[in-house]
Amino acid sequence: MVVSNRGPVSYARSPEGERLVRRGGGGLVTALRSLVAHHDVTWIASAMSEEDRLVAEEHAGEAFEETARDGSSYRLRLVAHDPSAYDWHYNVVANPTLWFLQHYLWGLPYTPDLDLGLHNAWSNGYLPVNEGFAAATVAELELEPHASVFFHDYHLYLAPRLVREQRPDALTTHFVHVPWPQSDYWHVLPEHLRRKIHQGLLANDIVGFHTRRWRRNFLRSCEDVLGAEVDYARGVVRHGGRHTLVTSHPIGIDPLEFDELKDDPRVLEYERLIVERRPEFLVLRVDRTDPSKNVVRGFRAFAFFLDVHPELHGRVTMLALLDPSRQDIPEYSEYLAAIQREARIVNDRFQREGWQPIDLQIADNFLQSVAAYKQYDALLVNPIFDGLNLVSKEAPLVNGRDGVLILSENAGSHEELGRWALTVNPLDLYGQAQAIHAALTMPAEERRARLEATCAHVRARDLASWIAAQLEDLDRFSASLVV
Amino acid sequence: MVVSNRGPVSYARSPEGERLVRRGGGGLVTALRSLVAHHDVTWIASAMSEEDRLVAEEHAGEAFEETARDGSSYRLRLVAHDPSAYDWHYNVVANPTLWFLQHYLWGLPYTPDLDLGLHNAWSNGYLPVNEGFAAATVAELELEPHASVFFHDYHLYLAPRLVREQRPDALTTHFVHVPWPQSDYWHVLPEHLRRKIHQGLLANDIVGFHTRRWRRNFLRSCEDVLGAEVDYARGVVRHGGRHTLVTSHPIGIDPLEFDELKDDPRVLEYERLIVERRPEFLVLRVDRTDPSKNVVRGFRAFAFFLDVHPELHGRVTMLALLDPSRQDIPEYSEYLAAIQREARIVNDRFQREGWQPIDLQIADNFLQSVAAYKQYDALLVNPIFDGLNLVSKEAPLVNGRDGVLILSENAGSHEELGRWALTVNPLDLYGQAQAIHAALTMPAEERRARLEATCAHVRARDLASWIAAQLEDLDRFSASLVV
Repeated sequence: MVVSNRGPVSYARSPEGERLVRRGGGGLVTALRSLVAHHDVTWIASAMSEEDRLVAEEHAGEAFEETARDGSSYRLRLVAHDPSAYDWHYNVVANPTLWFLQHYLWGLPYTPDLDLGLHNAWSNGYLPVNEGFAAATVAELELEPHASVFFHDYHLYLAPRLVREQRPDALTTHFVHVPWPQSDYWHVLPEHLRRKIHQGLLANDIVGFHTRRWRRNFLRSCEDVLGAEVDYARGVVRHGGRHTLVTSHPIGIDPLEFDELKDDPRVLEYERLIVERRPEFLVLRVDRTDPSKNVVRGFRAFAFFLDVHPELHGRVTMLALLDPSRQDIPEYSEYLAAIQREARIVNDRFQREGWQPIDLQIADNFLQSVAAYKQYDALLVNPIFDGLNLVSKEAPLVNGRDGVLILSENAGSHEELGRWALTVNPLDLYGQAQAIHAALTMPAEERRARLEATCAHVRARDLASWIAAQLEDLDRFSASLVV
Repeated sequence: MVVSNRGPVSYARSPEGERLVRRGGGGLVTALRSLVAHHDVTWIASAMSEEDRLVAEEHAGEAFEETARDGSSYRLRLVAHDPSAYDWHYNVVANPTLWFLQHYLWGLPYTPDLDLGLHNAWSNGYLPVNEGFAAATVAELELEPHASVFFHDYHLYLAPRLVREQRPDALTTHFVHVPWPQSDYWHVLPEHLRRKIHQGLLANDIVGFHTRRWRRNFLRSCEDVLGAEVDYARGVVRHGGRHTLVTSHPIGIDPLEFDELKDDPRVLEYERLIVERRPEFLVLRVDRTDPSKNVVRGFRAFAFFLDVHPELHGRVTMLALLDPSRQDIPEYSEYLAAIQREARIVNDRFQREGWQPIDLQIADNFLQSVAAYKQYDALLVNPIFDGLNLVSKEAPLVNGRDGVLILSENAGSHEELGRWALTVNPLDLYGQAQAIHAALTMPAEERRARLEATCAHVRARDLASWIAAQLEDLDRFSASLVV
């Protein structure tokens, strides 16, 4: 049983009044595709669109049969939350409050204010939405009492405990896809809220993270925030008469998907357009317009690089393909404005006839991104903090120019890929400018060797192995219960 | 031997051309007064004023005899740094970079940029100033080879290692008066800088903090940043063939000083003025205008409290006595402006004939602060993070109204005083508004009991006991060397 805020499909209605089924390509959905293909899965998710709510109503809120992209069938249960509650849950608590907290993004002298609005959004938004998920999960457990439950991410921290209260014997895991900050930073929330979040997660049998770093942070913060007893060697937390196994498994991608996409006619057409426009060197970034992604500093670092290397003017472009993200939230729309402003400043300063240093494209266009993946000479992945970062795994796999990965030390994928990348500190403009230059002037054999090693790793640690590792954890945990 | 950026005296010149000696009342200077009184002390500090530089020159940069306020004599050595180097050290690296880092104050999506300016300020400011301190320390150790060296605070992280290289057998301790953030937040600096800071401190035999919390953070960050071997139970870090004892001793105050100040005629005059103006209830805050002190949110919380308690309009004033701080640094002047703006917003909204809700006074006036200490009904100490916070110890000692302390969970003094205070989360406006109301409506006996317990603690854990604890640490460390 998979429980996540965003589901594998979303429903819409065509202008002709026909129901449309949109099978999402988002990270988690792709990730769990192989689970759906090989197991009997019930998926519980929020009804997000108007049409989702109609579908949920038609099934009286119960699960119904759906079909995945590859034809495998699964059961889907859409939870139709109260619309205001869902707005508070999503647009006030989950993003920005928790997201900003978990990525160390708040500027604490001024933000956030934990005012009545936040307290209300917690009590009347985050809590009831989690209650809705818990009730749906318990209802499904009635039907399949021996199912394992997989909760996902920061939208659902309270649900596991609510389920546990009613189903003490359920086997549950929770995978956290974002960074786990250290305990001081959890003080952005008042004590009773940060305790509830930790207690909620510890109601699971297993809690998983992408990296050893976030896992270590979670083990320590359970000790600091709750006074829990922690066995660091085994990764076990004891609290409230229960114990929880804490693991780390970096998520992978599906190499076959990218092997196919690479030669997709639509991708080839986008690639032709990029090749037509590109100068000698292409520095690429592909991100959501999220403050954690550090786009503004990336542009500043690029300007700094141009400043010191006039010999490369006209010969290099930074292509920034940015998916506009969460624009209902002021912190996000302000960041998008800052991105546009900074690109303009850099272009105004350096551009000349026939050469624009930064090519900024704000759109959600995955096929175009894959085309750009094939063409980069340097890929800049410089997040301030990032749970994992899939771009750093996807892009090398299809790259055809022995492109070099420039990777933030605070991206989760750095634990795996750091040894073949040029490591940068995300705040260090000087270091990033140096890395761009180093990438573009690196000897061909070295570039090729780094890229090949990266791809070999990404192919070996694929999505299927990530799913397998989670299922092994479940077996390991169940076995330890028997012993 | 005491080594600190700010010395116990500063020299100036009167309009008549006469040399003036200003004996400072700052935290560290007061703290070390009893050390000077009972031991043969040489103090090494920066020549900060023009006249300081002249005095240093007159003594050819060597130590000379000075007299403390109580008449005890000591030796003073002023280090005259290159003025640009000192500006970069103080106004770029120490404040704001390290200060903001150590108090979790950066808004990472936008600040800081580690640009050429910062890299230059480190190499040509922070490093040479530390080299200057190290050279002076080594020179004094030539004269007194068996002296123990006490380094202080975040201005001098590199000096201990430089001294150690030349004097492997010197006995050195370093007391850090600010919070020690957790390892993720040290990633605000590139790896080589955060390593140098940790290595610098670990060149000491002992490193001291005000709280168990900052001590724990330091032990862990030595493990995370340097891969050092840490014995958490004993508080010992092994790194680079050496071992360092890490301790925590909260600094105290001198009760006698406040017993005397309480009846000082100048204080009584200020008190008379306060009594004349005060309404029924006085909520007090006394701070530097530092973003870590959280003044803006304090005003917002007070407005929120007024919002919910119209029955107290006209009956309560928040008196904010704020010492303008580090106004050469843009982050600080912007914060002072934000303080003034917020006070204006609150006053414009609530004030009426004969009542101003917030009485904001921007001045450095310690005697007026002591007068206000005597008069508060509630003392708001709500820092975002604070190494210790002396106001929370000084004010209760002279308070004559059974005033209630409202204390941030992130103030270092919360480890000692939290049990008798009303604890608040510094970002939680709602919680702070509730605490103000709870303080003003608390039964008299409870207020008295809390205040008496606080004062008993502050008297028992005084400044002399803090100094004694440091000297015991030295004995303990030396003994362990013999064993």
